[in-house]
Amino acid sequence: MSQHHVIATYLIETPYPLELAAEVMAGEQSTGTFISVPGETPELKEQHAAKVISIEELESSNTASLPGVHLAQGMDHPVYRRALVKLSFPLHNFGPSLTNLLSTVAGNLYELREFSGLRLVDLELPTAFSERYPGPKFGIDGTRKLANVYDRPIIGTIVKPSIGLPIAEYGPLVRQLAEAGLDFIKDDELCANPPAAPFEQRVATVMNEIERVADRTGKKLMYAFNITGEIDEMKRNHDLVLKSGGTCVMVSLNSVGFAGVTHLRQYTELPIHGHRNQWGAMTRSPLLGMSFTAYQKLWRTAGVDHLHTNGVNSKFTESNESVIKSIQDCLTPMFGDYKVMPVLSSAQWAGSAIPTYEAIQSRDVIHLAGGGILAHPGGIAAGVRSMHLGWEAAVQGIPLTEFAQTHPEISEAIRIFGKK
Amino acid sequence: MSQHHVIATYLIETPYPLELAAEVMAGEQSTGTFISVPGETPELKEQHAAKVISIEELESSNTASLPGVHLAQGMDHPVYRRALVKLSFPLHNFGPSLTNLLSTVAGNLYELREFSGLRLVDLELPTAFSERYPGPKFGIDGTRKLANVYDRPIIGTIVKPSIGLPIAEYGPLVRQLAEAGLDFIKDDELCANPPAAPFEQRVATVMNEIERVADRTGKKLMYAFNITGEIDEMKRNHDLVLKSGGTCVMVSLNSVGFAGVTHLRQYTELPIHGHRNQWGAMTRSPLLGMSFTAYQKLWRTAGVDHLHTNGVNSKFTESNESVIKSIQDCLTPMFGDYKVMPVLSSAQWAGSAIPTYEAIQSRDVIHLAGGGILAHPGGIAAGVRSMHLGWEAAVQGIPLTEFAQTHPEISEAIRIFGKK
Repeated sequence: MSQHHVIATYLIETPYPLELAAEVMAGEQSTGTFISVPGETPELKEQHAAKVISIEELESSNTASLPGVHLAQGMDHPVYRRALVKLSFPLHNFGPSLTNLLSTVAGNLYELREFSGLRLVDLELPTAFSERYPGPKFGIDGTRKLANVYDRPIIGTIVKPSIGLPIAEYGPLVRQLAEAGLDFIKDDELCANPPAAPFEQRVATVMNEIERVADRTGKKLMYAFNITGEIDEMKRNHDLVLKSGGTCVMVSLNSVGFAGVTHLRQYTELPIHGHRNQWGAMTRSPLLGMSFTAYQKLWRTAGVDHLHTNGVNSKFTESNESVIKSIQDCLTPMFGDYKVMPVLSSAQWAGSAIPTYEAIQSRDVIHLAGGGILAHPGGIAAGVRSMHLGWEAAVQGIPLTEFAQTHPEISEAIRIFGKK
Repeated sequence: MSQHHVIATYLIETPYPLELAAEVMAGEQSTGTFISVPGETPELKEQHAAKVISIEELESSNTASLPGVHLAQGMDHPVYRRALVKLSFPLHNFGPSLTNLLSTVAGNLYELREFSGLRLVDLELPTAFSERYPGPKFGIDGTRKLANVYDRPIIGTIVKPSIGLPIAEYGPLVRQLAEAGLDFIKDDELCANPPAAPFEQRVATVMNEIERVADRTGKKLMYAFNITGEIDEMKRNHDLVLKSGGTCVMVSLNSVGFAGVTHLRQYTELPIHGHRNQWGAMTRSPLLGMSFTAYQKLWRTAGVDHLHTNGVNSKFTESNESVIKSIQDCLTPMFGDYKVMPVLSSAQWAGSAIPTYEAIQSRDVIHLAGGGILAHPGGIAAGVRSMHLGWEAAVQGIPLTEFAQTHPEISEAIRIFGKK
């Protein structure tokens, strides 16, 4: 792999010849303009032009996936060809800068009228990026150490209701969850610093309960406090969590943006739990936006330690195939040790472990269940236990129904959640 | 308008009854979860639930706009109904926080499987947002004052080639452009701090030429330096531009994100020129993402002084109707004086003024032309003059061909650019 270029792979759809379309992309995002200007010398083009490395033609269609494509004269019966196009961008055009990389590989080109579809599907970044950006500070190993959980997934839940829980009810709820043996709790992404539960009071109340349970049981739960906000506010919130003995902070990545998150990474003493809300808008149109493969590389470089991926059979639109691919993406090595822990959530229960482990063959995940733990008929502790057992069955390759015969927490879970 | 709620309008498409679908959106983004949990009391719901204000049914379709929609049992021949849905979110759920507002109105709901299309089309923000965020520091009036241009558009161009111009060539180019009478130049969004033209050297070279021309002519050109980068880097770059006598900084908004831009707004002494590259990915699928109407309100609140809108008949996919609507959005009052100057660009020339002014009836724009000025057969000064004349013709309601008879800069412009 070149250390002097970024390789970006796109899925495109165009009524123009593929070679021409690929050259338009390369030109727009490097040396091109609509009328040639005097300074565009051959030397300059040689040094700075993006180059088309490969074009792999895929299927074609008689209809355009997206509106706005411009048909040239004579294109009366256009065929919209799809292809994977690899472009090579000279690193010295932008340097190892995530923000300026983004303007180059995912900027104006989405608006080019030669395309009825354009999606960034992968990125290969040279090591100059890892020299500038130190990546996840804690990653999988650091998170396990802080949570004191090894050889199995970190089992967690989300504070519900999503928003509006009065501060007085946080204490009893967190105590109950911690006593039930949960490893991890996260704030909902809707709840950062609302009047009903101001951030400062929430941290004080929650950490007090977590420490009290830890004093009794020796197990200190990891709580991801939602510090999403302005630059100075995130710093204050981070410092408060750290000072209060907390072990994780959560950020809504797309709301804050790259500059905000890399700034947090510079000073953080805690793992960054990356929530990807708004991700659907970037990926749900199959020929637009960005794939998760590219997305997670950008955020790992920015220094995120945990990253949401959805879970199998969730309440969202994402297919199980896509969820599994996302988890695998997170677990694929990058820059040696830029390890991010995938966070599985949405309609998860004990049984979700089976197809997940079968596909990923790893236990390096944070597995969040809301109802699947809290609404377990045996109570919350039984719900937590059912999650552990689900993973045990998965790892041992024992069918869940068989495991249920000797484990009531599983048979109960199947009865309540098994039809979902 | 309520001062205690944010009103968000969505364009949706769903095979479910519209009332049900709207309730799912409201629930997901406020008090909902997939299994009811103990804390969800009626009082809590009353205080924190988002409410459906109105549903306006539109056309329907037999095919789904986006994949991933979940069909319930019995939906063998689904009809996908479209509608405009207005939701009201209690402000106290998130407070006047742009980042947390975003997680609420444009977060996980894009992934809800009840929808085959979901797009945020408008937002009404209570004044609490203007109390926390001071908005554009310069806006239209401040920009005009700094550029010393009144009663007509600010005419500008973009440094081309987009990337790779050696630092030694910046001086002569900027001198030539400044001497030709341009009001404004911007860096390309691809060019922030590349080795061929490092930021510090570029500022020194460019400002030296601008000041020298100003000394001779009394006219000081406004140059938008691309400071896109990390939090500390943007601060350093801003300070350098200010110290060097520069009058504008440019940021790739989507690359940096909201937290980064509001941070810049806190200390800026210069207008913020907001480039929207990557915008296409957020808007090009008609039933996904966000409309420009909502987008520009968010960025105006964040404090952006100039915002790109494309120009009519551009090289991009956007229709003229959409471009005009975007310019009008920018010129629509918000929070009293949150005025942002729309920036028109892409394949612009003198003739672009006619349809633009006809539609917007305003000269409060920054009008950028690349080839339309630089490739004018009479030279750059004639290119600049042709832009002024185009706007004069537009404002006076004189057909361009008639104006051309007495103005050779226009007739030449028509000859070269008129067929595009």
